[in-house]
Amino acid sequence: MNETTTSVSSSGPTDRRRQRGERTRNTILSSAVDLGSREGLESLTIGRLASDIEISKSGLFAHFGSKEELQLATVDAAREVFLREVVYPSSQVDEGLPRLRALLEAWISYFRRDVFPGGCFFQAASLEFDGRPGPVRQRVAEIMGDWLNLLTQLVEAAGVGAAPASQLAFEINAIGLATNWQHQLLGDDQTFQQATNAFDRLIGSSR
Amino acid sequence: MNETTTSVSSSGPTDRRRQRGERTRNTILSSAVDLGSREGLESLTIGRLASDIEISKSGLFAHFGSKEELQLATVDAAREVFLREVVYPSSQVDEGLPRLRALLEAWISYFRRDVFPGGCFFQAASLEFDGRPGPVRQRVAEIMGDWLNLLTQLVEAAGVGAAPASQLAFEINAIGLATNWQHQLLGDDQTFQQATNAFDRLIGSSR
Repeated sequence: MNETTTSVSSSGPTDRRRQRGERTRNTILSSAVDLGSREGLESLTIGRLASDIEISKSGLFAHFGSKEELQLATVDAAREVFLREVVYPSSQVDEGLPRLRALLEAWISYFRRDVFPGGCFFQAASLEFDGRPGPVRQRVAEIMGDWLNLLTQLVEAAGVGAAPASQLAFEINAIGLATNWQHQLLGDDQTFQQATNAFDRLIGSSR
Repeated sequence: MNETTTSVSSSGPTDRRRQRGERTRNTILSSAVDLGSREGLESLTIGRLASDIEISKSGLFAHFGSKEELQLATVDAAREVFLREVVYPSSQVDEGLPRLRALLEAWISYFRRDVFPGGCFFQAASLEFDGRPGPVRQRVAEIMGDWLNLLTQLVEAAGVGAAPASQLAFEINAIGLATNWQHQLLGDDQTFQQATNAFDRLIGSSR
């Protein structure tokens, strides 16, 4: 979102062209993220997406030269959404237990509000790509490794540590995976309360 | 597996033909389950599978009239594998806590041994189909609902119940999802120990 406002003061023809290009790129990626979350990253072909958002294939090729390039840019765009919805708001909250609690509340809210229309983009991409070696799998794994590390750091900073922080981070992450799974597949919304109970017990019982 | 031995005593030409047909069907489904776990059920086209196992497309059509019929039969074949590997062995063990423990040990072993070469068939199918309404999604959701019910019953019978059994079943299932996710995506095998720790604490702390 930031990049469209960086050069807002200058407005020569080149800048306007670049701004238009960035808007088109953002439109493409926003549709790609939605489609990827609903039907998977493998469904993201240049042709399919071009037809969905009514842009010419050559117009789309001008932004992304290959399916893989489009997939990688889509993964990074989805990461931005996740950071904006779940991670950044909690970074405004006091360090320690309050920040951890804020993150977990934002995470449950993210599942409940279907921020990605097909459910958590990263859980779907993880399962889709774990058996498909290559740059997309590698990027998804990196982002998920970063996420587990962030959880571990926040658990450590919160000082909720009868078990090692990595163990607690594993269990917290597990609850999130199950919440998304149960909401998306079984349409079972009591899962949000179950997640809250589990987090309370995990963070409470280890104090 | 059982159906191939039911009529082993009679061996007229019709029976032999039927047995051969069943063997072919089992071969097809075994390949379909493997491919489905690695690359997803949407990758299961009649053409792709026919080429993988070197059978004619028309030979494959004789067994499965459509992609959807093949997908449904594949889901049921995968269910048989899961029951055989995880559920049936524990049903031989004493009711109550021993049976619950046996099930969870068999489940971790199933993840560790990569019983499905691409990781847990059902977690992958759940995430792939949660956004694709239709009979395949419905069948996967039914099987997963049955699984959660089984966990809930076993937790109840084990009498490990400070929290409601459905809450504990939710958390136990969450640990399994995370174990598969972490092993498949991050190649992180300390997850098996983390799962054991989590199960011990869940079953222990709620006694």
